[in-house]
Amino acid sequence: MDNHKQLVIGLFGFGVVGEGIYKVLKDTKSLNASLQKICIKNPEKSRNAPAELFTTDADELLNDPAINVIVELIDDADAAYNIVSKAIRGGKSVVTANKKMLANHLTELIGLRDAHNVSLLYEAAVCGSIPVIRNLEEYYDNDLLSSVSGIVNGSTNYILTKMAAEGQDYQEALKQAQELGFAESDPTLDVEGIDAVNKLTIILKHAYGIDEVPDDIPYCGITQIKPSDIQYAKEKGYHIRLVAQTIQGEDEAVVAFVLPTFVGKESQLYNVNNEFNGVLIGSKLADEQFLYGKGAGRFPTSSAVLSDIAALRYDYRYEYKKSKSSVKLALKNNTFLKVYVSFDSRDAIDQAQFASIDEVYKSNGKNYIVGVIDVSVLFNTEWFYDKQVSVILVEANVAHKVSNLSTKEEVLYI
Amino acid sequence: MDNHKQLVIGLFGFGVVGEGIYKVLKDTKSLNASLQKICIKNPEKSRNAPAELFTTDADELLNDPAINVIVELIDDADAAYNIVSKAIRGGKSVVTANKKMLANHLTELIGLRDAHNVSLLYEAAVCGSIPVIRNLEEYYDNDLLSSVSGIVNGSTNYILTKMAAEGQDYQEALKQAQELGFAESDPTLDVEGIDAVNKLTIILKHAYGIDEVPDDIPYCGITQIKPSDIQYAKEKGYHIRLVAQTIQGEDEAVVAFVLPTFVGKESQLYNVNNEFNGVLIGSKLADEQFLYGKGAGRFPTSSAVLSDIAALRYDYRYEYKKSKSSVKLALKNNTFLKVYVSFDSRDAIDQAQFASIDEVYKSNGKNYIVGVIDVSVLFNTEWFYDKQVSVILVEANVAHKVSNLSTKEEVLYI
Repeated sequence: MDNHKQLVIGLFGFGVVGEGIYKVLKDTKSLNASLQKICIKNPEKSRNAPAELFTTDADELLNDPAINVIVELIDDADAAYNIVSKAIRGGKSVVTANKKMLANHLTELIGLRDAHNVSLLYEAAVCGSIPVIRNLEEYYDNDLLSSVSGIVNGSTNYILTKMAAEGQDYQEALKQAQELGFAESDPTLDVEGIDAVNKLTIILKHAYGIDEVPDDIPYCGITQIKPSDIQYAKEKGYHIRLVAQTIQGEDEAVVAFVLPTFVGKESQLYNVNNEFNGVLIGSKLADEQFLYGKGAGRFPTSSAVLSDIAALRYDYRYEYKKSKSSVKLALKNNTFLKVYVSFDSRDAIDQAQFASIDEVYKSNGKNYIVGVIDVSVLFNTEWFYDKQVSVILVEANVAHKVSNLSTKEEVLYI
Repeated sequence: MDNHKQLVIGLFGFGVVGEGIYKVLKDTKSLNASLQKICIKNPEKSRNAPAELFTTDADELLNDPAINVIVELIDDADAAYNIVSKAIRGGKSVVTANKKMLANHLTELIGLRDAHNVSLLYEAAVCGSIPVIRNLEEYYDNDLLSSVSGIVNGSTNYILTKMAAEGQDYQEALKQAQELGFAESDPTLDVEGIDAVNKLTIILKHAYGIDEVPDDIPYCGITQIKPSDIQYAKEKGYHIRLVAQTIQGEDEAVVAFVLPTFVGKESQLYNVNNEFNGVLIGSKLADEQFLYGKGAGRFPTSSAVLSDIAALRYDYRYEYKKSKSSVKLALKNNTFLKVYVSFDSRDAIDQAQFASIDEVYKSNGKNYIVGVIDVSVLFNTEWFYDKQVSVILVEANVAHKVSNLSTKEEVLYI
């Protein structure tokens, strides 16, 4: 009865995820997959697997005609790119978890994949165990999406949760997250929002068929979030969350960005706490769908990698159907957002840059403005990048409201 | 590049879902699927499709060698069973949304499917657009599940939400749900919990490899829920939800049942309101995962059926890997549950049936007990089936706590 393809796997990387995969492959005969060789960087380290499985020579795996699948689980994005592109050129299918590498080379790698008629799967790269990519591919491939918004980075979510729950400031919460293994010793990719924008780049391809590199997508992380911002959120009944967001407008354009966001109780994202991830998908057919789970860590990542391996047995390939659609969508950056902007110095923000202003608050050491601003203006201001300024999204897609506000007579700033 | 299997479809049923499927198949060339014939019951009704597509003769589809896929979307479970089993015997793959038919014939149909080497897919049968089955098959096929609990029936969830939000009693809320199309004109299957137990039967097969029929799974619906129960829940900060639940114990046994349940704020199920569904999956690798979306209705059901059709292009089959596991799980019914039991008459409940009692409350017209009871005792009491008695789950899996309570000295009942 079992007519699945026999998989012979070459594994790059033997960290916690790699070792987990090795164990499951060994124990699960029904997967019809065998591990041929493991390429590691440091041959001196002791490993929980037979010595003859290991090599430090990548080509031993990449040039082995018996190996038909490469599983790539190393940290270095550049090395990963070399491995993955060479593997595909050699006619091998690839499973990878490297979101940074994918976000920066996706279009090229998909082209390579097509040219060599192999498969490239990477569920683990976006929200770990949560099957975001698979759902976008299979459940929304014939469906029209109106929005995808998600908490896609567990480290920042853990830090934001602790800042609100325990009154910690950013540095304290970061330190605790690092101690508990929820943040890297170098947390830059996470806390600056870069990891989230990498994942958003991959989501854009599957959700809308849009080819972008992370550099073209506006983003902001959480390092500038102050206890007074958390306090403001509490008073209004919000959680602050780092949300990666896409919104399809009425024209053939999609707005995408990563911003700290006030999330209200009515949203499923409100209940995504600690290191968890959650993705909310709005569509024409399936309506609102929410996927929640652990976005990183040994077991959740192993779970996603294993699912991809299992799918290769029946030659599963992503179809990128939205890329083949006759309606070509593109990113736009001329929508309006309602944002809360807090800052130490009252002169830091030029209110003339706002289309309208709803609130202005000033006190000793705490100032904020709530107003509507054009995305392209926002991401071109100097203050957006100023570390003493917090920009937190209040409401996306407010273009229709702005048209009713021709002047800024509402400005109350004294 | 497109080496997908060409699908030639015979469709049974042309209700709202069938018509939606017809339209998408017509418009989506990339699906590589054509609709050959549609079998309907009433030839007089006018239809939004060419007349030559329709027939009332099932055999015209089932005996047509050109048709390789039958999509079954009719209401009648017995007729659906005949169609599906005949289609499989004829070597055709099947997509169906008929949970009642599946729940009662699953083991037999899987056997038939294997014998004839075809595929039988039914994502739409469990929580509509939410890919519960696909996730259990693909994300948990190598994973050990600890629990699956879900709100799997939109009608009852809508009624319970409205009872709490608007202070309606059960009859009022049911009437409103029917007017808005969230409940059937004959709501019996939904409100008695039968629909939920049908879905739970299917979930048990995919999650644990357990073959059961719905008749063997204890269940209770929502018709007996009183405003005073809703009031009690509010005071404690709970929502009452009809939850289908499975729990794997430490031995090789699984407890499964459908019961109204107090759901606290800490659970993702707390935020499943109105007609939405949500399923919480606990596992060893992927940890806690939550899937949320619309469980029924034209578009969500169409979405799931289309996903199954798309998967047939690459001969996707459920593997039921848990059924092939060397560890054979079975249902058990000797676990303890903590339940709230409310009743009009103080003599209705025999407290001696409880292993321990935590609370007893008595007033004019409102009485309740909170206590721990053996599942097998609970489902064999007369009062469990008494329409003036509400049984609401407080906590499952409390066996370890009971062992510390050798007597019932805590009983406070006057």
